[in-house]
Amino acid sequence: MTNELDAFFEPESIAVIGASRSEEKLGYSILENLKVTFPGKIYPINPNAVEISGLTAFPSVLEVEEPIDLAVIVIPADLVKSAVEDCIKKKIKAAVIISSGFSEIGNKEAEEELKKISKGKIKLIGPNCVGIYKKDLDMLFFPRKRLKRPIEGSIAFVTQSGAFGTALLDMIANEGVGISKFISIGNKVDVDEIELLNYLENDLETRCIAMYLESTEKGLELIKTAKKIVKKKPIVIYKAGKTEKGSEAVASHTGKLTKEPEVYSAAFKQAGIIEANSTEEIFDYAKSLANQPILDSTNIGIITDGGGFGVIAADEITKAGLEIPEYSKDTLRALRSVLPSYGIAKNPVDLTGDANAERYEKALNAVFKDRVIDGVVVIALLQVPTLEEHITDIIRDCKVHGKPFTVCTIGGKWVKERVRTLERFGVPVYPTPERAARALVVLKEYADILKRK
Amino acid sequence: MTNELDAFFEPESIAVIGASRSEEKLGYSILENLKVTFPGKIYPINPNAVEISGLTAFPSVLEVEEPIDLAVIVIPADLVKSAVEDCIKKKIKAAVIISSGFSEIGNKEAEEELKKISKGKIKLIGPNCVGIYKKDLDMLFFPRKRLKRPIEGSIAFVTQSGAFGTALLDMIANEGVGISKFISIGNKVDVDEIELLNYLENDLETRCIAMYLESTEKGLELIKTAKKIVKKKPIVIYKAGKTEKGSEAVASHTGKLTKEPEVYSAAFKQAGIIEANSTEEIFDYAKSLANQPILDSTNIGIITDGGGFGVIAADEITKAGLEIPEYSKDTLRALRSVLPSYGIAKNPVDLTGDANAERYEKALNAVFKDRVIDGVVVIALLQVPTLEEHITDIIRDCKVHGKPFTVCTIGGKWVKERVRTLERFGVPVYPTPERAARALVVLKEYADILKRK
Repeated sequence: MTNELDAFFEPESIAVIGASRSEEKLGYSILENLKVTFPGKIYPINPNAVEISGLTAFPSVLEVEEPIDLAVIVIPADLVKSAVEDCIKKKIKAAVIISSGFSEIGNKEAEEELKKISKGKIKLIGPNCVGIYKKDLDMLFFPRKRLKRPIEGSIAFVTQSGAFGTALLDMIANEGVGISKFISIGNKVDVDEIELLNYLENDLETRCIAMYLESTEKGLELIKTAKKIVKKKPIVIYKAGKTEKGSEAVASHTGKLTKEPEVYSAAFKQAGIIEANSTEEIFDYAKSLANQPILDSTNIGIITDGGGFGVIAADEITKAGLEIPEYSKDTLRALRSVLPSYGIAKNPVDLTGDANAERYEKALNAVFKDRVIDGVVVIALLQVPTLEEHITDIIRDCKVHGKPFTVCTIGGKWVKERVRTLERFGVPVYPTPERAARALVVLKEYADILKRK
Repeated sequence: MTNELDAFFEPESIAVIGASRSEEKLGYSILENLKVTFPGKIYPINPNAVEISGLTAFPSVLEVEEPIDLAVIVIPADLVKSAVEDCIKKKIKAAVIISSGFSEIGNKEAEEELKKISKGKIKLIGPNCVGIYKKDLDMLFFPRKRLKRPIEGSIAFVTQSGAFGTALLDMIANEGVGISKFISIGNKVDVDEIELLNYLENDLETRCIAMYLESTEKGLELIKTAKKIVKKKPIVIYKAGKTEKGSEAVASHTGKLTKEPEVYSAAFKQAGIIEANSTEEIFDYAKSLANQPILDSTNIGIITDGGGFGVIAADEITKAGLEIPEYSKDTLRALRSVLPSYGIAKNPVDLTGDANAERYEKALNAVFKDRVIDGVVVIALLQVPTLEEHITDIIRDCKVHGKPFTVCTIGGKWVKERVRTLERFGVPVYPTPERAARALVVLKEYADILKRK
């Protein structure tokens, strides 16, 4: 099945309108980043150059003889309309408008004009956005030295704020979390969150949709669309601009008012959208939802080598209304057989500060196989000297049990290297017990959403 | 003024009872870490060795001729009593008992015995703890390769869970945050949180006391002591074990029940203790309280180069009951003079995605000098290509204005390197706008505490 948005994500050729030879221009970075990622044809468009970065440049897309699928537009706002008209003449199917200077500064007329001339003729993303990133299509204007790109994964991330979105992209890249597609939608002159949700519903590379939203004019449609999609894949949304001042800030950021901010949470709940309540929760939740099975019941096992962590995780699990039942007799027996004399077999179980990988392996095996237990929070103070390095393999292999689990490990450089390894294998790892616990709780929330009629 | 706890923090000689030549033993790592940090005399105590790691070993502290100030005890639980008796005979003033196997596994008798024999004769920290860390006194049994040590700073960190505490130590070391002293108090057979609070009140190196607490038998005394100390320096406490299950987990971790968990928050408030509500908030708050002036009024300025960040920070500031007033006319004029045509002078101000260091410098200068503004949240998407590297110097130099501020910058490796530089200069940096905003709000909370009669 083809979709008119395919041209954005699977183009065979791209024109960069505003490609530049000056390193400080955005049109320079965009061209550079496309060159190292995009396998198709690239046409720099610039009336004052015949060649840019070793590629033949053209004064206009109309001068290019071959067909072009996608245009990236990065020129001053007052030139954008004419560039889009050229794209339409050239029969380009889609354009991403990076340029700002539209409704976000009150220039609504220019945006209305874009809407009028493009309707039915070309699909537009933006303006006032940073565009699209996927592994083989990097049009971000951020130098790769400063902003790391994430590996391929199964989370699609849609953001209304380009700056905020790319900063998060850098953050998760550093943690080893992968994404399928990143889309910055900016002022949404054409393509909006609804159209993207519908597209991503059928995107085979995407198992979870994460979204940062400041405002929507289509609240009811968002709810209706989400309701349908969440039956197939989970949606996590962080809605900013919920207070009056935040809402005002949205107005000057995107030129839109967030109407009745307080109703969002209730509407999200009704739609089956999982609401993130902070910046961190967006990917905390998206990565467990994308990589773990759902949590069908409420019984959680907690396993740690540092008692304090178990206490905090137990607090968080209990606050969320889930249970920490006693392990079954077999499990308790197995735990007793690996624990030292000063350890106690119970839930949460503290393997104590001299735990080694073998003790973890046997204890994890017992807890994961326990029929009473439906989901597990695994907490490992990896720094203890007795814990061998293959502990990360052992934790990774907990996937074979088919039960949902999240991992917490706190620390510095040495720990973070190990976190990246686990994340690359789709194991969601968190820097605090609270966050690991809540990311597991969300798998129960999604299970309940799936059960709705 | 000398204090009987000085022997723990300023010893001239240390005996390591249980020093070992086997790398997998805790007594090995402890000796190694003391060797590379402690400038005084070290005596390995081990009945089966004449030399360990190049140091002359002794079968007992009683065989050492020179005086010993401090003993670190890391031997099986059933041998601890006799070792402490030897320490008393040797007139050692203080001992840290790392060994576990006491009340945390129900062995209350052994702990009572320790209490009885030591009373008035030797000060004890522990058992079941990881001991003390400061720059020139590292008795942690974690290898330095796996667990980084923080730089010197002005936060004292007291933790009831050794594992949890050291994991946080590693985390903040990685971020560039400094500490004055780290003390793991374990089962608190003698020295407890109250005694340490009183000691740290007069510790010139400490400007803020952070604490992870699971249980206390001396609730009223804690409140009374804190009430007195907070007039001099702020106290941040994270109390775990607040739910029934968490409280049960505490019981098996430290052998103590947390009575009436729900009363803690109210009592903390009454005492003027700033309560951390998550693992992250402990140091989020401690580092702004230790390094920033108090916030005397409610008027906050927000400055960013990515609109989305401003929206989120505005939400958080407003939720906390503080204000985001309009900037004064002079400030608005100054902002307009540096903003591009598509920027809007207002609060929060978005310097837009092509901001450079000069634009930041002028805008920061105007906002910090604005008489209407009492505190500032500075948010910088450092990755934008136009922003020169000396932006970190410019942000650091905002200290000259004498107004409290916190910084948010989200990202990966490149950003984190810059965060470390800022933190080393005492600028508190946060990975999300929400956390930067709340860390500023806490400076108002502390100002209000200081105003109490």
